[in-house]
Amino acid sequence: MTQELILNQRIVLASRPVGAPTPENFRLEREALPDLQEGQVQLRTLYLSLDPYMRGRMSDAPSYADPVEIDAVMEGGAVSIVEQSRNPAFKVGDRVVGQTGWQTHSINDGAELKVIPKDLPSDSMAVGVLGMPGMTAYMGLMDIGKPQAGETLVVAAASGAVGSVVGQVAKLQGLRVVGVAGGADKCRYVVDELGFDACIDHKSDNFAEELKQACGQGVDIYFELVGGKVFDAVLPLLNPRARIPVCGVIAQYNAQGVPEGPNDLPLLLRTMLTKRARMQGFIVFEEYGDRHEEFFREMTPLVTQGNIKFREDVVQGLEHAPEAFIGLLEGRNFGKLVVHVSDA
Amino acid sequence: MTQELILNQRIVLASRPVGAPTPENFRLEREALPDLQEGQVQLRTLYLSLDPYMRGRMSDAPSYADPVEIDAVMEGGAVSIVEQSRNPAFKVGDRVVGQTGWQTHSINDGAELKVIPKDLPSDSMAVGVLGMPGMTAYMGLMDIGKPQAGETLVVAAASGAVGSVVGQVAKLQGLRVVGVAGGADKCRYVVDELGFDACIDHKSDNFAEELKQACGQGVDIYFELVGGKVFDAVLPLLNPRARIPVCGVIAQYNAQGVPEGPNDLPLLLRTMLTKRARMQGFIVFEEYGDRHEEFFREMTPLVTQGNIKFREDVVQGLEHAPEAFIGLLEGRNFGKLVVHVSDA
Repeated sequence: MTQELILNQRIVLASRPVGAPTPENFRLEREALPDLQEGQVQLRTLYLSLDPYMRGRMSDAPSYADPVEIDAVMEGGAVSIVEQSRNPAFKVGDRVVGQTGWQTHSINDGAELKVIPKDLPSDSMAVGVLGMPGMTAYMGLMDIGKPQAGETLVVAAASGAVGSVVGQVAKLQGLRVVGVAGGADKCRYVVDELGFDACIDHKSDNFAEELKQACGQGVDIYFELVGGKVFDAVLPLLNPRARIPVCGVIAQYNAQGVPEGPNDLPLLLRTMLTKRARMQGFIVFEEYGDRHEEFFREMTPLVTQGNIKFREDVVQGLEHAPEAFIGLLEGRNFGKLVVHVSDA
Repeated sequence: MTQELILNQRIVLASRPVGAPTPENFRLEREALPDLQEGQVQLRTLYLSLDPYMRGRMSDAPSYADPVEIDAVMEGGAVSIVEQSRNPAFKVGDRVVGQTGWQTHSINDGAELKVIPKDLPSDSMAVGVLGMPGMTAYMGLMDIGKPQAGETLVVAAASGAVGSVVGQVAKLQGLRVVGVAGGADKCRYVVDELGFDACIDHKSDNFAEELKQACGQGVDIYFELVGGKVFDAVLPLLNPRARIPVCGVIAQYNAQGVPEGPNDLPLLLRTMLTKRARMQGFIVFEEYGDRHEEFFREMTPLVTQGNIKFREDVVQGLEHAPEAFIGLLEGRNFGKLVVHVSDA
């Protein structure tokens, strides 16, 4: 069997960041794609997803997953198209989603790949509202948050991939939903387009007071994505039996050294006790990997019928992934950040 | 109906403490007990329970329960004997348990009183191992901790009313149990008498390292009673899917002002996320008030047959309650602290 030589472009981790990542932490490489073996598929990347968790993989501090090795391709989920297949589970032309990394092509044994429907409005949805971020939002809210009609929910990064879904699903459940986002444009979008009841700009000098005003009945669910000053502002607003699903702490990912005082941990413990609150960290594919079908079945009609809206921030070309990712950690994206790597 | 004049002695809150309570915060008063009305019972206190939560009632900071008013009798649970009854649910000679306060006698409408069996080995058990502390231990461990055989549990104040029950019930469930206590005598008792696998002295210079050595397989359940440095030492030892029931933070109760840095809250949030841990505060009678019968049925045979041991630190005379309570917050008691107020 003769194979055409495919030149793969990939972005590897050149060095570990100290604080915020810089372009020098990444390196674009070209390599010939290896030959396809029996059982494998050859994929061409359509959309690469950029997500805050990737910052953790760039560090070698202990975490829930191994770090990316130096000189290894950056980890990431992507939608790809099958270009060649020596695996009977996949046909040429199938769209698949999997952790195939920051690269234009990949060879994969298929074990962790999921074929996605061809009739999705856009392929990129499979790494966004119908992918890991959407599932994180849905499972964290429903399984840990346990929303009840009439309650108040707060979520930060409210125009982003996870926060936007958390808030909209909570609205469908009958909750009062208050978002937090950075800047007037995002806040306007969150209220006018996504239908949140309110959205507070975390860049406001008066942020904590404005959040309190928007949560007149206190906070029953705080969906934690960011940590930092949003958490501090929510803490005194928690109602008895509040729930706090924790799926990220974006504000902390670039932190260096030991955080300055005062020490807020005693206040947190006291609040957890007096409010009889529950906080639970989760990693969606560790906790809920076996519920992907359920999520997809529930969410797909909500999205395709327009009950759940979403916005994408699409960057053109793999070579721009590093700067886009650096911007993501600074909140410069507006909507789910994806890299358009190639056309189907 | 003529009634004998009964002189009640009671301890009232004279002033709110700043930091640790002092004897000047309390005042012993005498008053004639009011006449018994239809539907009421007249009680004579046998054993008054002294518990760390009472420190919260002395402050007017917002909490889950209203503070004791200045000049009002100190709140507390007690075992009493019915001396007169104009309530058909209670007979003279019945032993009852309820929040009757720091006083020798009380008049009560009976709504919140529970009659306890006459055949308990000692009446004081009804405010200890078979009362609020025992139920706190049992419910928090079983319902929030969800112990699994082979796991490792850590509990502080291990020789005390709650910690001793947490550890022994966990041992019966097949867990490895590591206690934390203050001083060699308490640690020896926790291992030799209560059967914990290990007990670490929190006064040791090497406390964190010794705790780590004793938890070779990490920590699956940390039953939180104390906060402070024990929490700090446990945090890095938590295993994936660890559970942290929080029923008290004794080490913080006397704190004044803003705690010095570094700020450990970011580390906590990161740990909750990467370990997919769950933390839940609870107040036993708020959360589990309707499960008292279940608790009593499960625990009574374990205690009376000697499977669960307990130790009491009995102080003689109501007038000594303030100094005993001040000592409790400093860890000077050894076992469940009760005040013997009168003989049955």
